[in-house]
Amino acid sequence: MVITFEANATAEQLHAVEAKLRDLGFQVVRAPSTGRVVLAAVGDGALPPLEEVRVMPGVAEALRIPEPFKLASRSFRQETSVIRIGDVEIGGSAVVLMAGPCTIESEEQMVKTAAAVRASGARVLRGGAFKPRTSPYSFQGLGEEGLKILARVREETGLPIVTEVLDTETVELVAQYADCLQVGARNMQNFSLLKKLGRTRKPILLKRGMSATLEELLLSAEYLLAEGNYEVILCERGVRTFSDHTRNTLDLSAVPYVQRISHLPILVDPSHGTGKRQKVLPLSRAAVAVGADGLMIEVHPHPEAALSDGPQALLPEMFAELMRQVRLLAPVVGRTA
Amino acid sequence: MVITFEANATAEQLHAVEAKLRDLGFQVVRAPSTGRVVLAAVGDGALPPLEEVRVMPGVAEALRIPEPFKLASRSFRQETSVIRIGDVEIGGSAVVLMAGPCTIESEEQMVKTAAAVRASGARVLRGGAFKPRTSPYSFQGLGEEGLKILARVREETGLPIVTEVLDTETVELVAQYADCLQVGARNMQNFSLLKKLGRTRKPILLKRGMSATLEELLLSAEYLLAEGNYEVILCERGVRTFSDHTRNTLDLSAVPYVQRISHLPILVDPSHGTGKRQKVLPLSRAAVAVGADGLMIEVHPHPEAALSDGPQALLPEMFAELMRQVRLLAPVVGRTA
Amino acid sequence: MVITFEANATAEQLHAVEAKLRDLGFQVVRAPSTGRVVLAAVGDGALPPLEEVRVMPGVAEALRIPEPFKLASRSFRQETSVIRIGDVEIGGSAVVLMAGPCTIESEEQMVKTAAAVRASGARVLRGGAFKPRTSPYSFQGLGEEGLKILARVREETGLPIVTEVLDTETVELVAQYADCLQVGARNMQNFSLLKKLGRTRKPILLKRGMSATLEELLLSAEYLLAEGNYEVILCERGVRTFSDHTRNTLDLSAVPYVQRISHLPILVDPSHGTGKRQKVLPLSRAAVAVGADGLMIEVHPHPEAALSDGPQALLPEMFAELMRQVRLLAPVVGRTA
Amino acid sequence: MVITFEANATAEQLHAVEAKLRDLGFQVVRAPSTGRVVLAAVGDGALPPLEEVRVMPGVAEALRIPEPFKLASRSFRQETSVIRIGDVEIGGSAVVLMAGPCTIESEEQMVKTAAAVRASGARVLRGGAFKPRTSPYSFQGLGEEGLKILARVREETGLPIVTEVLDTETVELVAQYADCLQVGARNMQNFSLLKKLGRTRKPILLKRGMSATLEELLLSAEYLLAEGNYEVILCERGVRTFSDHTRNTLDLSAVPYVQRISHLPILVDPSHGTGKRQKVLPLSRAAVAVGADGLMIEVHPHPEAALSDGPQALLPEMFAELMRQVRLLAPVVGRTA
Repeated sequence: MVITFEANATAEQLHAVEAKLRDLGFQVVRAPSTGRVVLAAVGDGALPPLEEVRVMPGVAEALRIPEPFKLASRSFRQETSVIRIGDVEIGGSAVVLMAGPCTIESEEQMVKTAAAVRASGARVLRGGAFKPRTSPYSFQGLGEEGLKILARVREETGLPIVTEVLDTETVELVAQYADCLQVGARNMQNFSLLKKLGRTRKPILLKRGMSATLEELLLSAEYLLAEGNYEVILCERGVRTFSDHTRNTLDLSAVPYVQRISHLPILVDPSHGTGKRQKVLPLSRAAVAVGADGLMIEVHPHPEAALSDGPQALLPEMFAELMRQVRLLAPVVGRTA
Repeated sequence: MVITFEANATAEQLHAVEAKLRDLGFQVVRAPSTGRVVLAAVGDGALPPLEEVRVMPGVAEALRIPEPFKLASRSFRQETSVIRIGDVEIGGSAVVLMAGPCTIESEEQMVKTAAAVRASGARVLRGGAFKPRTSPYSFQGLGEEGLKILARVREETGLPIVTEVLDTETVELVAQYADCLQVGARNMQNFSLLKKLGRTRKPILLKRGMSATLEELLLSAEYLLAEGNYEVILCERGVRTFSDHTRNTLDLSAVPYVQRISHLPILVDPSHGTGKRQKVLPLSRAAVAVGADGLMIEVHPHPEAALSDGPQALLPEMFAELMRQVRLLAPVVGRTA
Repeated sequence: MVITFEANATAEQLHAVEAKLRDLGFQVVRAPSTGRVVLAAVGDGALPPLEEVRVMPGVAEALRIPEPFKLASRSFRQETSVIRIGDVEIGGSAVVLMAGPCTIESEEQMVKTAAAVRASGARVLRGGAFKPRTSPYSFQGLGEEGLKILARVREETGLPIVTEVLDTETVELVAQYADCLQVGARNMQNFSLLKKLGRTRKPILLKRGMSATLEELLLSAEYLLAEGNYEVILCERGVRTFSDHTRNTLDLSAVPYVQRISHLPILVDPSHGTGKRQKVLPLSRAAVAVGADGLMIEVHPHPEAALSDGPQALLPEMFAELMRQVRLLAPVVGRTA
Repeated sequence: MVITFEANATAEQLHAVEAKLRDLGFQVVRAPSTGRVVLAAVGDGALPPLEEVRVMPGVAEALRIPEPFKLASRSFRQETSVIRIGDVEIGGSAVVLMAGPCTIESEEQMVKTAAAVRASGARVLRGGAFKPRTSPYSFQGLGEEGLKILARVREETGLPIVTEVLDTETVELVAQYADCLQVGARNMQNFSLLKKLGRTRKPILLKRGMSATLEELLLSAEYLLAEGNYEVILCERGVRTFSDHTRNTLDLSAVPYVQRISHLPILVDPSHGTGKRQKVLPLSRAAVAVGADGLMIEVHPHPEAALSDGPQALLPEMFAELMRQVRLLAPVVGRTA
């Protein structure tokens, strides 16, 4: 059950409801992100006493949520959430493109890439300063130096930035620089990180894990929401299967499925989803056509020299062509780009 | 190596080349589908003596094909093959829609469905007379009676028909009625069936197996081509993964991948690929956007009463909406619909 | 519901029961493999009128079967079925080893291999005369010549033989020579083949498909049983997953699962299950320890020269060591070997 | 390349080698776990100048390691590593059983379980104080209170304890109480956690991720080793596949594969690997037969009341039977138990 309180509900009224629900054996989570107080009462087995709660003083609404995720469900919130990264809206009418290199390598690389993708129509700049690498011997990112580069490039270009945060220790550091904090696929079930990010006031881009079901993805989002951070954007980036012609298998049916059961916006990352430059353009079109709220695209001025994931990075001119095609497609699905 | 002979090459010239290649330890396959004789010489290890063969009398061209599939590869044939089902072209500029019920249940059902989908713009009628069913106790199809219904509906509507053939025994029977013979996912590696179908002169619609790689799909197509039937259309219909929100995981990256390495046209079946009615429309858009040559869509006037796969069948009016959206999308990818 | 009739039940009594069940909307399948007539009444929704059927004349027993497979379920038959291949019992107290090359290449190869594996303790000889090959250009087996070799080697060694049957056309031919007919993984859902094999009177070795669930495996077995052939042996041979250190992922939990829900014996094929010679011995031990009724092992005197699957074939001396270890292990799980 | 220095090598000699390798473009990692200094030089492309390094003063040995993981590879260390948890050796001749509940719920539960599993022959006690839960509304563990219970039970029973550590913040806390720190499947690629654990001096039990290849597992182990912690135990616990009769698909071929390419010991967790109580016993036998160095088994005195994973927990008497069977099996594979 999710209970929304009236704007002028008192602390006593709130406590009374909490106490009642706890007495009935429910766990009570306060989700205070917006103006009004929202409680989720969660329990196994017994159905919550909806009518009894609805008539308590201060209660505006009480709803039963059948999904295991509560605050992330469309039963809880019927309109799609619009999340702002800087002044860019994700989940609104526009299909938003986020672009940039996998890894920040130098200021020159970032300036060049950012100028190019902005000129083509990208609205958000991506780039990794802290990189999760399968091998301890691979380049692990420039760290704070990379964040500083991002900040200077934002200054120059006006593009808000999204960058990955790897661990709880660097949440504050990354949050100082970034406009949106990305949780990578490998960290989708790093619950300590999710809890800490749930207590920041920055939008979070949460990528689907390599073998995560959509219910698991939404329960990971619920960790963020339950801590009070409602600024959550999901991202489909391919799952691991036997199919070997692409690095991952991009599961585009995730987009309409998530949109039916959740109010959170969802992006698609065809760069990681395919791992191959030549597949990024057609799968980007497919992602827009299926209804994605935006795309994350890796772009590098010299992919052959990239420190990571070069084979999937587009050249700036390929990104321009992608953008051109997205602009043609978006109106067909009732969007702009 | 694939060797194409000149139009006026003699039988002796042909035999001489065959003999030479066999002497060198290659296996020689004659692929006589079109006017000109084509040989494929296949062998492990040793590289074929390209220059020696090229200069032999009667030889027009000799090419090395790096892929394990030869006749199906784009190295062998550079332009995309256009396959005709009746007077409908697959692989040409139009995105072709094939629609109809999973299973033929009655003439009334077929007439109703066919009229509706034709009115919306479908060009080919689908419907199963022989059904591969997981359980021996499930309805196995109307058999020849179903084929007769299909033929009568073709008469009425002018729509050519595609229907599944399950085994070698019924190839002739089904070929008498159908304009295109479908090989289902479970039969993709039924090599005896493929060989027999390779000797018919009907176009074949070959569906990807549930856990088949694309190389395996193309090697199954090669069985058809190697027997002389070059009229092969491929179809992506979802693969089996851990992901449980859809019945299968539709692997749309298969489309551009196949198009790069093979000259055969490729369709997408979002009905089986998702198993859920509400996902068919968005995934159909995605399939067109990714570049598919056509779609196979299950349509039923009363899905709730369907004898098989009701949950994934569209109502005729949903199909009309799908067609409307496909028509808007096709021009964006340089196609008509 | 499964109904068993008394030994002296009359045709009229049988028809009366069939008629009653059909009137109630059930589909009725006669499964006349053994002396007594067995009917399975299958239907959606409504529960069968157990008590009413039990009291009808001629009826010995009527049981409700909750599983979708009926005759294959342990609810239908409580003791494990013991299937005979020649005079070798599968499903009894002994763990049975079937061994031999993937493909029959020559009489010399077979004689040598058979003598060696028999000396080590194998009880059944395997070898493929008709081979399902991914590529049309790969060696497809010696065909009937291979079967004749098998028959001569059986004469010499006394080992009964199991060999694959690929299609309905060759069922009679293969059945003339073989003691047990193998259905390969790719044909697990070749329902026409299963139906025909269900009408032979030879034991069938049914391999799990590469992406088949166990329910699907048992429903394929049900096709055989429903046609009257109760001599069915199952075989786990690995499934297709992302995991790339073996050719397939051997799913040993299939063994106790099948044994709980079905009365059919189940073998394990660690040769295909791993695709790597060095893994065959440890996974064979694991298969015996998990409770398998037997093993299928590929053995070749010169694996490096094998025409197919050489990398997974054991040398005869490795097989002898495997057999030695199986003999030590079997008593620990209450079996002999 | 991995370079081992002589015991009396000087700091200058070490620096000289490091400098030379860096000049040549290699990344140099010092792995100072044991008495002697070990360096790993890692680089793309160029082969290291083995002979030149070998003759430098202070160098005992220099080896080329073909695997992407270096310190974890058997090329680097030929004998299997024996890791001590308290006074229990993992990787030695004994198959070691670790047992206990999924989650620590109360002191009484732990005392009861510990006494029972110790009596049966378990050598290490497991139990979770910090629990990674898919849903934020599920019980997250008793936290430090749970650790204190573990410590008291160790006092009473003498069993060393293994417990999961979820994040970098709690590494010190958990390390104060535990004898071995477990990294769960979801954290296998939490590289920040791995780095921090690499700097502790406690043995680490590293579980394979749900969709991790074995190369990825060993590269995650390499993170620990590269930081100087050589006390690493691996654990196979099932991977995620389409196969739905068990919660995960236990990939037992991982055991011999890891043992061939790495010197690290490897356990099997059939409780998570199957998710079903009735499958734990047969899969435990299989794990011992395949060669595992030990087993992790969930045991709960009242599984039906367990706060997590009740369906896979054994009753103490079932664990006793498991232990009895393991004792019979171990000698067959040359081990004790």
